[in-house]
Parts: sequence; structure tokens; C-alpha cells
Amino acid sequence: MSKVFVNIGLSLDGYMAPEGMSIENWENPEFKNWGAKWGSMMSWILKQQYFREKLMFAPGGETGPVNDMLRNTMERSGASIMGKRMFEQGEQSWPEEAPFHTPVYVLTHEKREPWVRPGGTTFYFVNDGPASALEQARAAAGDRDIRISGGADVVQQYLSMGVVEELEIGLAPVLFGSGRRLFENVDESVPPFRIDKVLHTPDATHLRYVRA
Amino acid sequence: MSKVFVNIGLSLDGYMAPEGMSIENWENPEFKNWGAKWGSMMSWILKQQYFREKLMFAPGGETGPVNDMLRNTMERSGASIMGKRMFEQGEQSWPEEAPFHTPVYVLTHEKREPWVRPGGTTFYFVNDGPASALEQARAAAGDRDIRISGGADVVQQYLSMGVVEELEIGLAPVLFGSGRRLFENVDESVPPFRIDKVLHTPDATHLRYVRA
Repeated sequence: MSKVFVNIGLSLDGYMAPEGMSIENWENPEFKNWGAKWGSMMSWILKQQYFREKLMFAPGGETGPVNDMLRNTMERSGASIMGKRMFEQGEQSWPEEAPFHTPVYVLTHEKREPWVRPGGTTFYFVNDGPASALEQARAAAGDRDIRISGGADVVQQYLSMGVVEELEIGLAPVLFGSGRRLFENVDESVPPFRIDKVLHTPDATHLRYVRA
Repeated sequence: MSKVFVNIGLSLDGYMAPEGMSIENWENPEFKNWGAKWGSMMSWILKQQYFREKLMFAPGGETGPVNDMLRNTMERSGASIMGKRMFEQGEQSWPEEAPFHTPVYVLTHEKREPWVRPGGTTFYFVNDGPASALEQARAAAGDRDIRISGGADVVQQYLSMGVVEELEIGLAPVLFGSGRRLFENVDESVPPFRIDKVLHTPDATHLRYVRA
């Protein structure tokens, strides 16, 4: 059966995104220095061959265990779920061939027809809440897994629902000071995790937690 | 020259202490379940031979790299700095031979004579702020290092002052949901850290950061 998983980058002080990183300031990465901050958190991913090929259409890059992890994350995903903010940011940033190649369920109050992109990505706009989005994602994913993509509030909702089975964090040695925290408003009754695997690189510590 | 370092346990969601863990509830670990929560975060330390011998006067325990790390942390420390809350909790919990064997500087508004314990620990009560406490600790530590022991607010003050050179975190796979966060109110201009070392065990991931 499909697993529900989260795979995100995080600052050492627990932020998924620095203050100022929002749709209003998308064209202005100097605003509160959000562009440089986010870049420093995600520097590890920009070096990977798989990421460069798929998102930047750039040659070269590292091909070690972190690259394998990235490829695995993409290949195991049969559906993704994301929030409205993350979608709107991606709408402005993703290449035309959006980098999912699966159905993507967007939690939003907006009513909108499915948006079909070349390359197999279709965005579905879900108006009736996270449980419904998960049900639809499960039906679509088949044997593959369901990725809770973000943002922070969406990850928190699924954590609190107790459905997240695997939590993968790329912990970067940077301090943001402020921004959107990953762990906030998380229900105390979340089923416990155990450490499954740690992949140590100079740019980030890749922590993988699974259900205890 | 002496290094200023922090070595603490942290929950995966970023708390140094669960909600309810305070001097008022010290005799009541069932209050908001703080005792079990804290125990689950620190389970790794209770297993170590060095900790058992020094604090629990109990035999046995693990003697691997985590134990070596604990011993090294203790042996490198020539002075410690802590907050009033941490001191008051320790006053009720430490054995008569308090486990420091060095001068300890307590940040407090209370005026009090130095408190000499058997075994080489003397507590000095510092009323004129963290910079003064650090100066006194530096003078006392000699060639050895200065440990910022906690709690969270004291670590935050020294982080924000930009004087913390090494940050060691035992990150346990537990979620508290609420409590006292390590990273809060930290000034944005903190000098950057890099990952120095990661020690991976099933109970906690020991992350060591040093100045970049």
C-alpha cells in the first residue's frame, strides 16, 4: 500500500521558508534577503545532477547518494498534495513541463478546472479539505507513494491527522531567525517516529524518520 | 584560547524542554506528562556509562562513541554558565557533589554568596548580565572551554551575542508539540555555522556545528 511521506528542506532553527518568501515578493528576492536565505538552505539540492537535469536543464552535478535519494523521491511519488501558496509560487517558477509527472492535489478554496501540463502533471483543485485530497491522491497513486509537498501549514495538517508515515528532512546549517516553521500547531497525539537513516554531507544532514 | 560551546538535547520539533517542566511541577512529572517526554528525549544519555557513573552512581552502561563524547564534554569544560531556572531545578536534583567540578556562573537578579559544593563545584551568582558572566567564566576556565549550559533563554542570549563557537545538539526523534524552544528570539546576525560532525545512533542524532 502507498506510504504517505514528507520530504523537505529545513533550516537549523526549524524554518521551511524564511520571512519575506511569499508570492508578493516573488520577483524581489532581496526583500528581507529571502532569496539568499532560501538558497543557502537548499544549496545541497542545486548541486545534484538529477535536480539540475530535471528542473534547471543544466548539465553536470553530483551523482552520489544524495542524488540517488532525490531520484528515488521523485520516482516513488505517484501523487502529490500541496497548499495554495506553494502552488501559486510554483505556477510562477516551474518550467512548462512541471516537475511532478503525476496528479497533484492543491488544497484551496478556489474553484478551478484541472490544469493539465505537458509531461504528465495535472493539478486538481480540491475544495473539501485535506482528508478528501488524501483520498483522491491515494486512488491516483496506485502502488506508488503520496508526497505531502508543503507548505508548512499543509505538512502540519497531515502530521496532526496522524497519516504521515515517513518524514524526511534535509537539515541545513543555516539560521533564518524568522519565517514559517515546520513544527507548529502539531497535535500532541502524532504517532511516534524513529530514526531510520541519516545521510551526512557538508551541506545538509539528511534525516529520515519512519513510524516507530 | 577557550572555546564557548553549547551542548544540549533537543526534540525533533525544536524544544529543549516540554511544556510543564518547571520548578513548580518538579515533584510532579505527570503534569502535562513532562517527565516521560523529557525522558524520551534524553533516553540516549541515561544509557551511557559515563553519565550513569557520574550522576546516577549506577553501574554498567554503553561505552562507545557517545560515551566518549559525553566524557569529552565534561573534561573540556573549565567553567559553565546557566540561567536561574536551570540552577533552581538542579539545586533540587543534583547530588551533593554537583556534577560540574568547576566554577559555574548563574545569571540571576538574586544576590547571594558563592555556594561551594564538595568535589570542586562553586556556584557564583552573577547580577550584571551575560557579558560579565562570560568574562568571569573565561578568567576561570584557563585553557579549558566554557559551556553555556542552558536553559533555552540563556543559550539564545549567547547565540545572539555571537559568541557561541560550537553548537552540539542531540536531536531525538520525539515531538513535544509545545514547550521551550531552543531557536527563538535569535538575532539574525549570528555568525554562520557549518556542519563539523554527525554521530548517528538509534536514539538520537548528534549534530556538531562549528563556526563557518
